[in-house]
Amino acid sequence: MADFLSLVNSFTATVSFSAFDKMVPLLASAEAAEVAEVAEEAAEADEALVVAGVLLSLITIYLASKIGGEICARINLPPVLGDLVGGVVIGVSVLKLLVFPEGGEDASSSVIMGFVQSTTDLEPSALVATFQSQSEVIAILAELGVIILLFEIGLESELKELIKYGPQAAVVAVVGVVAPFVAGTVGLITLFHVATIPAIFAGAALTATSIGITAKVLAEIGRLSAKEGQIIIGAAVLDDILGIIVLAVVASLVKTGEVEVANIAYLIVSAGAFLVGVILLGRFLSPYYVGLVKELKTRGPLLISALIIAFVLAYVGAAIQLEAILGAFAAGLVLGETDKQQELEEQVVPVSDVFVPIFFVVVGAKTNLGVLNPADPSNREGLIIATFLIVVAIIGKTIAGFTIFGQPEINRLAIGIGMIPRGEVGLVFAGVGAASGALSESLEAAIIMMVILTTFVAPPLLRVVFKEEEPLPQPESVGSSQE
Amino acid sequence: MADFLSLVNSFTATVSFSAFDKMVPLLASAEAAEVAEVAEEAAEADEALVVAGVLLSLITIYLASKIGGEICARINLPPVLGDLVGGVVIGVSVLKLLVFPEGGEDASSSVIMGFVQSTTDLEPSALVATFQSQSEVIAILAELGVIILLFEIGLESELKELIKYGPQAAVVAVVGVVAPFVAGTVGLITLFHVATIPAIFAGAALTATSIGITAKVLAEIGRLSAKEGQIIIGAAVLDDILGIIVLAVVASLVKTGEVEVANIAYLIVSAGAFLVGVILLGRFLSPYYVGLVKELKTRGPLLISALIIAFVLAYVGAAIQLEAILGAFAAGLVLGETDKQQELEEQVVPVSDVFVPIFFVVVGAKTNLGVLNPADPSNREGLIIATFLIVVAIIGKTIAGFTIFGQPEINRLAIGIGMIPRGEVGLVFAGVGAASGALSESLEAAIIMMVILTTFVAPPLLRVVFKEEEPLPQPESVGSSQE
Repeated sequence: MADFLSLVNSFTATVSFSAFDKMVPLLASAEAAEVAEVAEEAAEADEALVVAGVLLSLITIYLASKIGGEICARINLPPVLGDLVGGVVIGVSVLKLLVFPEGGEDASSSVIMGFVQSTTDLEPSALVATFQSQSEVIAILAELGVIILLFEIGLESELKELIKYGPQAAVVAVVGVVAPFVAGTVGLITLFHVATIPAIFAGAALTATSIGITAKVLAEIGRLSAKEGQIIIGAAVLDDILGIIVLAVVASLVKTGEVEVANIAYLIVSAGAFLVGVILLGRFLSPYYVGLVKELKTRGPLLISALIIAFVLAYVGAAIQLEAILGAFAAGLVLGETDKQQELEEQVVPVSDVFVPIFFVVVGAKTNLGVLNPADPSNREGLIIATFLIVVAIIGKTIAGFTIFGQPEINRLAIGIGMIPRGEVGLVFAGVGAASGALSESLEAAIIMMVILTTFVAPPLLRVVFKEEEPLPQPESVGSSQE
Repeated sequence: MADFLSLVNSFTATVSFSAFDKMVPLLASAEAAEVAEVAEEAAEADEALVVAGVLLSLITIYLASKIGGEICARINLPPVLGDLVGGVVIGVSVLKLLVFPEGGEDASSSVIMGFVQSTTDLEPSALVATFQSQSEVIAILAELGVIILLFEIGLESELKELIKYGPQAAVVAVVGVVAPFVAGTVGLITLFHVATIPAIFAGAALTATSIGITAKVLAEIGRLSAKEGQIIIGAAVLDDILGIIVLAVVASLVKTGEVEVANIAYLIVSAGAFLVGVILLGRFLSPYYVGLVKELKTRGPLLISALIIAFVLAYVGAAIQLEAILGAFAAGLVLGETDKQQELEEQVVPVSDVFVPIFFVVVGAKTNLGVLNPADPSNREGLIIATFLIVVAIIGKTIAGFTIFGQPEINRLAIGIGMIPRGEVGLVFAGVGAASGALSESLEAAIIMMVILTTFVAPPLLRVVFKEEEPLPQPESVGSSQE
């Protein structure tokens, strides 16, 4: 009987989730023996069970996002902070519901995988492979989330406004890169006697701006299309490009001891050519696009063709060594100029609601708050350096906001605050630095603390500085709510 | 210079796609050496390049879906057939743009991976891992696609109508399972002298109905909520459950030579309890759900909470050895009864537009038309048996439609035709049979041919039989179009 049940179990497992996974070995080959072998191999990470793990992960992510977001909305904090904090609660720091193998966690510490194992017929031997596959799918969904977020931000941005405030945004971006970089590097060398190369790496990590978090908060408080919002978005986009260039410079310094001008020039030219090229080409091709969409008779003509464009530009952005999110943003900008903008935005919103929380919750879930624990002696040196980096990070970007010229009425403080969150971009510097062996443990931990603090502190601050200026009629009803 | 470029390449690769992947090793550990090691391991399937592969795959899938769908819509065929044919064209049978490792293809035969390799800095050593990760993500997205499709079908279905026509649907389902099973099994034994066990397996493969394809066509021609549509959906859902039971019976026959009544009883009881339980519990809890949604202030309150319910029920459906899609369908049915149905459906449509084509195109892409090639002598025995199976498959289900009682006005032919496509469910039988060694090569190939033919032939036939009955005013504008 037990034997029979396990047989039926293994068969019904192939049926569950429409057992689509079993389709291919059958279609591809007529050799029954080979098929049997393939089927056995596939059991190592049974697709049906990966789907089960993904479903549970998505349920957990959406619950964390909704509960965190609703609490934040009620205590007048930005809902995206709820996504981040909700992610921290379900992630590696607290409940360990959603953990990722790259975090040094194994399958046995994943509560979700444990649950899958106790409710399905997941074999212990297949646990690791299933956990890894499930984690990878969630990580890729998070990436698609930030791509779709930047596409939506692009759609909501006004190209005219971005160009109009381009000079101001450029000044904010350059000052916001140079000030914290110089202050951080010099401070680490003089005050903390850090060697030059690691100090430069840490300084470089201070230059980034996480466009995702800032843009989301701006949308939530209905300020994305305000003058300040457009300057912040413009500066953050330029910051992203500057960050890539800074990283290339620093990386070449570490490796060869000198700066390769040709490559830096390539990055600058390709970034400029990409953005200008997309916008010019987009203006030229937009009428044909709108005409084509009107001819389409199958479901989702506007949305799917827009996503094709967004994904193509995201791919191009990545392939020319910029970022996928820059391509998605450019696609949104161009399509936002067409007369289909309103209709398209309405259709993108539900897709964005499905994908974007995955990104922010995963950011939170991957954040290990352990490095912030002062009770752990090994954290203390890092904590002191971190305090310095955090001060430089906040002041450096705030100063950038005050460099705005020709706009007497503008909220300079809000612009500076808007540039504060380092998000994942700052962590890339720490990662590349650590991988190259240039950073000490404590300096790496300090950079991570700086990234966490600036990322979590900016959303509520941003709300406060915009609130001080003038009371908004119904902040919850704009951007932060669907109803 | 070359050395430097490759360094910068490897660094900028970590930046592209916001290099989110590099975040975790940094956060989790303070040991720089370990971090470096983790980073190197990660290089085996760099997440940024997996995202690049996924983006290209999605672009290809959407282009295939749109081009195929638009052509079909213009020659008056169901657009979903365009998804399937578009998938065949980009898949393993023709262009090999989108291939899957389980199909026996390796990374070097994937045109998409080749393109990624030539446009990014993907290392040849990382090619296989990146290809596998990318394929897995697309496969899981396809699974989510069919789950969301069934959720949408459930939303659009009327619970009252399903219950009203329940007896008719049950008769259609039972006759549609018994008739082809008996005719197929007996025919194979008497006409083709096939041994009993493989004949029973092949007969069992004739019993399935692919609810996804039929429901999509019905929605496209605006007949989903017609009397015929609701009987087909009800019968297809029951067929799915019957299919799971038949598989358990056949599997136990092969393994132990006898039928375990206890397990069959468990499957029948759990299926019934699940569907009835969800509907009763859903009716009881719906008002609380609608009340809760009205209280939510963050984005997407209705859509995300509905998806949470759909995913929970999909998980439960899978965990109790039914199918995830049955859970999603039940969730749609229950939420379709609330007064939020209209609003929810509007928000699900764009999400469905994004996910569902992935499912159908992937079905097409995984279909290897090689087994249909009569020029290959090894296919010929299979082709003769396949012809017999196809005749039985079509006649067996068509007969089932004519067993409808008490409905003189109904289109019996349309109901029978609606049950014809076997889809992926039929392939599961072939797969389990092949894995257990019960099926010969030619019989397995014959089953696969039967599944391909019935799946591709039913959508246009369905359209014809509904057309004959009465002309529809504007078939393109209902279900098949957004505008």
